Formats: sequence, structure tokens, C-alpha cells
Amino acid sequence: MPDSGAMPADVLSELHGLLARFSAIGATAEGGVTRLAASAEDGEARDLLCRWLREHGFTVMIDEVGNVFGCLDLDDTAASGAVYCGSHLDSQPNGGRFDGTYGVLAACCAALAIKRDIENGKLAPQVRYLVVVAWTNEEGARFQPSLIGSSVFSGALRAEDALSARDGDGVTLAAALEAIGYLGRERPPAEPNFYVELHVEQGAVLEQTDHQVGIVTHCWGARKFRTRFIGKPDHTGPTPMEKRCDALRAASLLISGVSERALASEGRLHGSVGRVVVEPNSPNVVPQSATLWVELRSGDEAELDGAETAFRQSLERICAATGCRVEIESGSVRAAQSFDADGAALARRAIESLDLRTMTMATIAGHDALALQERFPAILLFVPSVDGTSHAPQELTKDEDLETGLTALTAVLSRLLSETRGNGSPESGGSA
Amino acid sequence: MPDSGAMPADVLSELHGLLARFSAIGATAEGGVTRLAASAEDGEARDLLCRWLREHGFTVMIDEVGNVFGCLDLDDTAASGAVYCGSHLDSQPNGGRFDGTYGVLAACCAALAIKRDIENGKLAPQVRYLVVVAWTNEEGARFQPSLIGSSVFSGALRAEDALSARDGDGVTLAAALEAIGYLGRERPPAEPNFYVELHVEQGAVLEQTDHQVGIVTHCWGARKFRTRFIGKPDHTGPTPMEKRCDALRAASLLISGVSERALASEGRLHGSVGRVVVEPNSPNVVPQSATLWVELRSGDEAELDGAETAFRQSLERICAATGCRVEIESGSVRAAQSFDADGAALARRAIESLDLRTMTMATIAGHDALALQERFPAILLFVPSVDGTSHAPQELTKDEDLETGLTALTAVLSRLLSETRGNGSPESGGSA
Repeated sequence: MPDSGAMPADVLSELHGLLARFSAIGATAEGGVTRLAASAEDGEARDLLCRWLREHGFTVMIDEVGNVFGCLDLDDTAASGAVYCGSHLDSQPNGGRFDGTYGVLAACCAALAIKRDIENGKLAPQVRYLVVVAWTNEEGARFQPSLIGSSVFSGALRAEDALSARDGDGVTLAAALEAIGYLGRERPPAEPNFYVELHVEQGAVLEQTDHQVGIVTHCWGARKFRTRFIGKPDHTGPTPMEKRCDALRAASLLISGVSERALASEGRLHGSVGRVVVEPNSPNVVPQSATLWVELRSGDEAELDGAETAFRQSLERICAATGCRVEIESGSVRAAQSFDADGAALARRAIESLDLRTMTMATIAGHDALALQERFPAILLFVPSVDGTSHAPQELTKDEDLETGLTALTAVLSRLLSETRGNGSPESGGSA
Repeated sequence: MPDSGAMPADVLSELHGLLARFSAIGATAEGGVTRLAASAEDGEARDLLCRWLREHGFTVMIDEVGNVFGCLDLDDTAASGAVYCGSHLDSQPNGGRFDGTYGVLAACCAALAIKRDIENGKLAPQVRYLVVVAWTNEEGARFQPSLIGSSVFSGALRAEDALSARDGDGVTLAAALEAIGYLGRERPPAEPNFYVELHVEQGAVLEQTDHQVGIVTHCWGARKFRTRFIGKPDHTGPTPMEKRCDALRAASLLISGVSERALASEGRLHGSVGRVVVEPNSPNVVPQSATLWVELRSGDEAELDGAETAFRQSLERICAATGCRVEIESGSVRAAQSFDADGAALARRAIESLDLRTMTMATIAGHDALALQERFPAILLFVPSVDGTSHAPQELTKDEDLETGLTALTAVLSRLLSETRGNGSPESGGSA
């Protein structure tokens, strides 16, 4: 039985101390953080992480899109392969303190506990490397798409495409990473047998059903469309109404339409427009263009097909009504998918052996584990979010849940390290 | 008969040369200009104007909100009072080359012609000063409200309030003017007996009716409301639709509602939302707030009353439907009003004596002359805009119309200078 379940007090204390230090980087007046990907604040958080990793015996490597790896060589004799564990340090504007950061710091602390168990002879690793990782631009707030670092790592996105993504001011990800000193060329010496991520739920299912840890078995699909209406700039005063081609009016029809369809779906479809950029955005000029970041999400691909068809048809109607043109400038599709079943089963055995209340569930939000899962088996664990709030400064996970999550993560990692071999498939059995 | 109507060729040439030089300052790829109020580009245009004024014998004065006055002392013996003539040098983002700038440069050139007529004994001024003026922030693109400089001059707006207006980046007008060296303390030695402004129409009435010069006798009223919806930030993925308070969805309902009412009014009401600021404006965050710059315009105050009532009622409905709150952060009202009748009559006599096709008309757009007219009699003249387009790089007035406008302006100023006295009322009569 590799997982004792008792987390040393100093490791729990390290977790809370680290969370407080990272929460201070980019802290906002409302209690959140603004730590956009590859910003100065993100750079400060990365620097702190790298210092901590080096001080604790990890070898730090930065890859070509700024992913930060802290590599621990557990056993240079018999074992082979690697288990990766982490999440991301970037945040939404005035976003939550725990989103992503908790997963990186819990990985650090779990690694501390595991290192000690190995030194004390309580754990005999069958895997050579334990790699803590912080992925670049998970949020997709400053650069689109989201999950950039993990998608490049898994091969789903080309590094050149990732690096040429531009923020709202036209700055490329490459330039932003270079400015903070995180454009590297190194990767850990072994690819992941397994990737494990611990994250706050960002929904209220665990809270409402009184579970302590969620094991994610599948994820909703998402289709995202950057959509640009093009009208004609003109004076808002004298220009006759019927002569106007108002791109913001066209945008408003799309925004309300997306929400209405999702509201009518009784929970099967989520839809939103979170970002809009209007040009010239002057009070006295009929808007010349309006670019909308539209997203549709569902656990059911047929529902998504229907929503996408309705979305595309509505563009035609809106253009006919407003005299605008429309362009879909970019789209991204993430299919509804399942997580590795063996990994979920292993996680369940590990967590149930700790007598924690656990359940399997879906994720609607995107996570780096989804990008990894394209190529490597991945395990995604959730802890409760108070009231389900996230991407907001009010985001909160209680101290006891933060500690429970770390305990569960350590148990899952311990099993992966002791039960799996270099080929990535966990051995059957276990004590649950 | 003080107005010969024949503009010297060198003065016409000066007008075209000046227009070309000013069009190059802040020039955009599409052929427009971006010369936002108190920006570096505006500073460059002001510097060029001041140099030109000094080179041509004007005394330059800058007042406490950056208005630029070029004062010409026509007769320091018998005459008294002043006639002011000008417009503005600031533009919309990627706005037109002629909007405002033409009026300032035509005033310069008209003053040249008048100075020569006085020197040649063709004109005997009864008014001591001719003042060319460029008002600060007419457009209201960077700082709101619009007509800031002229409103402070006329007393309708306090200088402290004007100077504390902030742009989208939080920069005050005071700081912006100081940065370009245009925070002054001087005013011309006499207030205006009359203010005259020549402007491009920004509508298609003159073009459609084949008139060369419009004499503006009245203006539409305008009501402007900076309206902010406040929702709740949340993750666009997992947050259940019915739990969301989406400020951009609320905004979209208002934007389409304003347009629909105006479209249904058959030309009696113009309504638009030209600017929107969303926070945090991230693709994956349910928008927390959306601020809209809403304007309603009509020539009929009862129509405006009805539109404002409908606007306010729609806010209640939208909040009930979306769970958002709303605040009207600021509003401004410009009543439908008439221009000085004696001034319009004088302008008509002067222009008809040149055998130009002229008509009286309304302005729907706001102009500095409206702000001046609050306290001083004002005359506003229009020349045709091709296709009525303005606030856009395609804005165009033909060379022959530019020249005709300068000729008409010179004739009107000549009459004002020779027929009016220090008390501001033109004598009756004339040759029309």
C-alpha cells in the first residue's frame, strides 16, 4: 500500500505558504489576480516557481513555448519513464487565485512528500522521473487559443503557430515570452507515461453533492469562432438610419441569439460571447467592425452540430438585416471526449483507499489535461469550488479541500509511480 | 458692396497647400486621419497652425483648455469688438481629413484675403479684431463630452470639469494638453460679436439638392447617456446559463433596441451606440460589465422625450431579463435650437450676392458653433460632402466646393466686419 494518506504537517504548511506567495503576484483589489500569460506578473510567478524547484532539487527546463518543467530523478538505476503533474500559472483578468496555480503548487508539494517517502523507503518507484509542469497560456485570455503550451507539447498545435499568436495589442507570444526570459529549448528526458492534474472544479457539482474529490472521466466539446462583422464607418448624427451598416448592431443580434439558444436548451448547451472588439469604438462613429469571440459547449456532439448550424444561419440573417458582411476569422473545435479509463480507475482506487468521498464527473471547462490526453493518458482531479464561482476574484476553495486535494493527488501519484512502468499502463489490482 | 467674390489665386492655393500639410499629420493608410484631441498628432497640427499664424501677423493665444486663438488687429483706431472664425483640428479615429480642419484653414485663408482688402482700401473694418480659432476636443472621440473647448469658452462647461475628463486609458485632458504644451492662460482681448464656422456638411442634402453652400438655421437636439450594465464574472464553460448575469448580453439587448426604435421612426429619430467597453473582455469570462455610449437625436423634442422614456423603460426590462444592474453614469442634453436669425440673414445676403446656390438647412451633427451660440450669435455654413460620408477616411469635399466655401466665408466675414459694430448686431440692408 503505497499511499499512507497522512500528509506531513510541514508539507501542508508549504502548500498554504506557497499559495499565499503566488496569490500576491498580480493581486487585485477585489482579492483576485491578474496574471495574464507571459506578462511581467506571469514572469514573476515563473521566476518564483523556478527558484523553488531548484532549491528543492529539481532540474528546471524551459521548452520552446515557455512551458516550465521541474524534473526530479527518482531512481537512476532500475526505473524508466516519467510521470508528469502540474497545471498553469496564468490567470484571467481579475481572475481567481486557485485556478491553475493550485494544481502547480500541489504538484510541487506532492513531489516533496513523495521524495521523502522514497528516501524513507516507503515508496519504491518503478518510474524514473517525476516532472512538475506549469503550462503556458492555459487561459486563452491574452492569447488565443487556450491550452497553448500543453497543446504544443502534445503535438496538437505547431510551436510556430503558437508563438505567432497575438494579443489585443498585437504582441506575439514569442515576443512576450522573450521579454520575460521564458523562450527556451529544453524538454525533460522522458515523455509522460501519465499526466496528472489537480484543479478546482469551477462548478458546483462537488459542493452540491457533498463530495471531496472529483475524478473527471469525460469532457464537453467546445466550438469557438472568432467572428467579425464589417460595416461602414459614418457619422452617428446625420447619417440616415436606413443607410447605416452598423457592425455593433449586427454583433448585438448575434450575442443575444447565442444566449437565447443556450438558455432554451435546458442545460444541454452553454453559449456565450465573452470578448468583443469594436472599431473605431468612438461614441460618434457608426461602428465599422465588431469582432466577437463566440463559444458553444455541450456534452453532446449532435447538440453542438445543431448549435453550429443555427449560429451560421443566423450570420446570414443578421447580414441581410444590417447590411454588414461577416467573416469567421478563426475557429477551434474540441470534441467531447473521455479520459483514460485505466487512469480513472487507478485514481478511484487511490482516493477511496483514503476514505475520501469521491465521484466521477464531467468537465465543461477546458484544462491542460485535455490537451495532454490527445497523446498521453491523463488523470484530472477536481476539488470543490465554493458556489461554483471561477474566473472571478470571488473564486474560493476552502483550506480543508485544498489539503484533501493534495492528499489525494499524492496518493494517485504514488500509485502511478509504484504501479506503472515505462510503457504507461498501470498494473491491475491495488487495495481499494 | 464689401464682397467682390473673386478670391485671389494665391489664397486658394494656400488653402489647398495647407489642407495637404495638415492631412499628412496623423494620416492613415485608408486616406483619413487619426488626430485625437490633445494627442501627439494634435500637438503637431497645433504647432503647425501656430507657426503659420505667427508668420502671417497673428498674435497667438492659448487658453486654459487649450483653445488656440490667432488674433489679427485690423484697426487700432476707431473700431472695437471682434469677429471669431474657426473650427477644430482634432479628428475621429481614422476620421475624415476635412472635418473641422477645413474650417480652421478656411478661416486662416479668409483672414489673409481680408487683410489684403483692408490694406488695399477695399474694406473698412468697423470691428477691431479678427480672431481665427481652433477649439479643443470638438469630436468627443477621446474625451467626452464633445465640444469641450467651445463649451468652456461660452461658459456652458466649467474648465475644471473639462480638464478632469479622462480618456479610455484614464489620462486627463489636463495631462494630455500639458504633455503637448497647450495648457495656457490667455484669451483674446475682446469677446466675439459674432462667431462664424465653415464646415463640411457630413450629410448629403446639399449634394442631393445641388446647392453649393448651406446656411444652418437650426439644429437637432441630442441626448447622450453613458450606460453601464453590471453583471457577475464567471466561467463561460461550466456556469449554468440560468445562473449567469451577463453584462454583454444585457448590452446587446439595449444596442439592438435603440437601433430598432430609430429605424421605425421614419427619419424622425436617429439612435446609435458607437462605443462599448466590456470588462474583463476575456473570451472565457462571462462579462462583468459593459459600458455603452448611447445617443438619441431628433429635431423634435417630443420625439426625444418619447425615445428617452422608452430607453429608460427598456433598461428595467433588460435588467429583469438578465439579472444585471444598470447605472446611467453620465448624460448630456443638447436641446434642438435655432441659430441667430440676423446672422443667417446676413450670410444669405452675402452668399447670394456671389451668385452661389444656397439654402437654409438643419444640422444633425454637433458643431462648435452650437456651443458658441449659447452665448454669442453664431453663423454656421456648410459645403457639400460627397455621398454624405463623414467620420470615415472616405470623407470627401471636392476642390471646387472647398474653394466656393472659402469664397462664401470671406464674403460673410467681410460683411460682418464692415456692417456690424462692437454691440454685435448687424446693420440691416445689404445688396441681396
